[in-house]
Amino acid sequence: MASMAKASNVTSLFLGGVCKEEKTKNVAMAKLGFYSPRNLIKPKRKGLLLIASAKNPHNLDMINGKKVNGIFVGEAPYTGKKSTVLIKEHVPYKQAHAASLVGRFVEDRHVYRQTFIIRSYETGPDKTATMETVMNLLQETALNHVRSSGLAGNGFGATREMSLRKLIWVVTRIHVQVERYSCWGDVVEIDTWVDAAGKNAMRRDWIIRDYNTQEIITRATSTWVIMNHETRRLTKIPEQVRQEVIPFYLNRIAIAEEKNDIGKIDKLTDENAERIRSGLAPRWSDMDANQHVNNVKYIGWILEAFTN
Amino acid sequence: MASMAKASNVTSLFLGGVCKEEKTKNVAMAKLGFYSPRNLIKPKRKGLLLIASAKNPHNLDMINGKKVNGIFVGEAPYTGKKSTVLIKEHVPYKQAHAASLVGRFVEDRHVYRQTFIIRSYETGPDKTATMETVMNLLQETALNHVRSSGLAGNGFGATREMSLRKLIWVVTRIHVQVERYSCWGDVVEIDTWVDAAGKNAMRRDWIIRDYNTQEIITRATSTWVIMNHETRRLTKIPEQVRQEVIPFYLNRIAIAEEKNDIGKIDKLTDENAERIRSGLAPRWSDMDANQHVNNVKYIGWILEAFTN
Repeated sequence: MASMAKASNVTSLFLGGVCKEEKTKNVAMAKLGFYSPRNLIKPKRKGLLLIASAKNPHNLDMINGKKVNGIFVGEAPYTGKKSTVLIKEHVPYKQAHAASLVGRFVEDRHVYRQTFIIRSYETGPDKTATMETVMNLLQETALNHVRSSGLAGNGFGATREMSLRKLIWVVTRIHVQVERYSCWGDVVEIDTWVDAAGKNAMRRDWIIRDYNTQEIITRATSTWVIMNHETRRLTKIPEQVRQEVIPFYLNRIAIAEEKNDIGKIDKLTDENAERIRSGLAPRWSDMDANQHVNNVKYIGWILEAFTN
Repeated sequence: MASMAKASNVTSLFLGGVCKEEKTKNVAMAKLGFYSPRNLIKPKRKGLLLIASAKNPHNLDMINGKKVNGIFVGEAPYTGKKSTVLIKEHVPYKQAHAASLVGRFVEDRHVYRQTFIIRSYETGPDKTATMETVMNLLQETALNHVRSSGLAGNGFGATREMSLRKLIWVVTRIHVQVERYSCWGDVVEIDTWVDAAGKNAMRRDWIIRDYNTQEIITRATSTWVIMNHETRRLTKIPEQVRQEVIPFYLNRIAIAEEKNDIGKIDKLTDENAERIRSGLAPRWSDMDANQHVNNVKYIGWILEAFTN
């Protein structure tokens, strides 16, 4: 996968020492599309545009002889029991303390919000949060959203109606626009919600704010489709499943359409790739709780191509 | 480094599915000693004992042609300005919220305490927090302790008297005893403090508790000595530096001496190693904010030797 990486305008990602001066970095964007035939990377606007993909989903099961799977394990919301964390204006310390570590629903339960402090080991050589950190936090917020919505969740996050049909959600595209990367100790507030995306997909969006200033520092959107876990084939969203998720939909867009790079990009091959990073194989520590390599690791591998 | 790994009793580390049943895993221990001539790994008691080391500290600067450095970047406490986070019994939500994400001093400022929630991506294939996660949280707590003590901190954490002499702290040994690994969503409370270790070293200890039950689930201790940043030679602690750190010392031991494996272990070589994992090279993403590979990554590489 990583050998498909190609881009020319990536130095802005690796500027060092911006934390103390609170400089703003250039916008960086990362996309992945695991089932798209348009597998390539091309610099666009000011920043970095990345796409990694596997044309044939059946190939995702094996990398270097290890059983892995490049899909993002997210879970669809579910209309089951509610488990909202209620925060009152004044609460005893210990309760507030524990409650503030988890997320909570806001805006009539249509938005899930979680606050994080950036840890030292989540920053890279330039002393700011890495793209992997940003995407891990997006994933964490999405998973907590789903879990708090009442989905106990097998790893693949199927709703009840999906489980009956052996269906799982897979991500086909993630688009992240970073305005500013956080530093060690910064507190960020992440909002996430879901909406319909055409007839047979779901969209999950995120907004990351600086907790203190409430400035929006990152916007992200992703597209999810349904796959049969056994046949590995994409399928339409069954009507029963649609009825399960519709109550959670919120008609709001994190990245305005005119700022959303959805244009087709040239196909990337070993021949036209400007940068190739070989020798990358999944480590045991790359495996997640579902014993597969998720999309965040792919982004990390792709970024490895740009670092020498 | 990782090729030195050797152990026979490691399967307990990779038991899956213990999170829902709240089973207790076997004790696992990890040690590192970067300057010790006793570079080896030997199973002891029920669990895993690991030692990784580089006999010659000068060699730590380069791995595969990249400038790296295997030392743990920790910082010594400093008697400068105080920046304690004060928590009252009842506080408005937003303040409590932000405050609860950072650590605070307890026990007359001798112990620094921070609470963490385990994130999904910090767990491994067995669905529990990985050893790297445990050690990252120990590191994070130690760094926040130092920073909250008033050390602005160059990356190497020298006190003022140390900076004047180009001295930095380096870790020579970390011993971690895990009683139980946490699951996604578990809240842990970490206490850390420092004490003298003989005449020319400092000891940093940690206790990890389950936040809800207050049960101790992990104990850890580490030994720190002083090195000249330019000559890479170890040195005695200058009296002026000792005077800076003594006010922070707390005479308390996380791992009782009779439970602390300090016995000498046979030297490990390529010949007597039972397990060797080759092909591990630092990735760009292995670099920390000091542009070097810290001890936690070494532990990760060592553990890679046991996973096939």
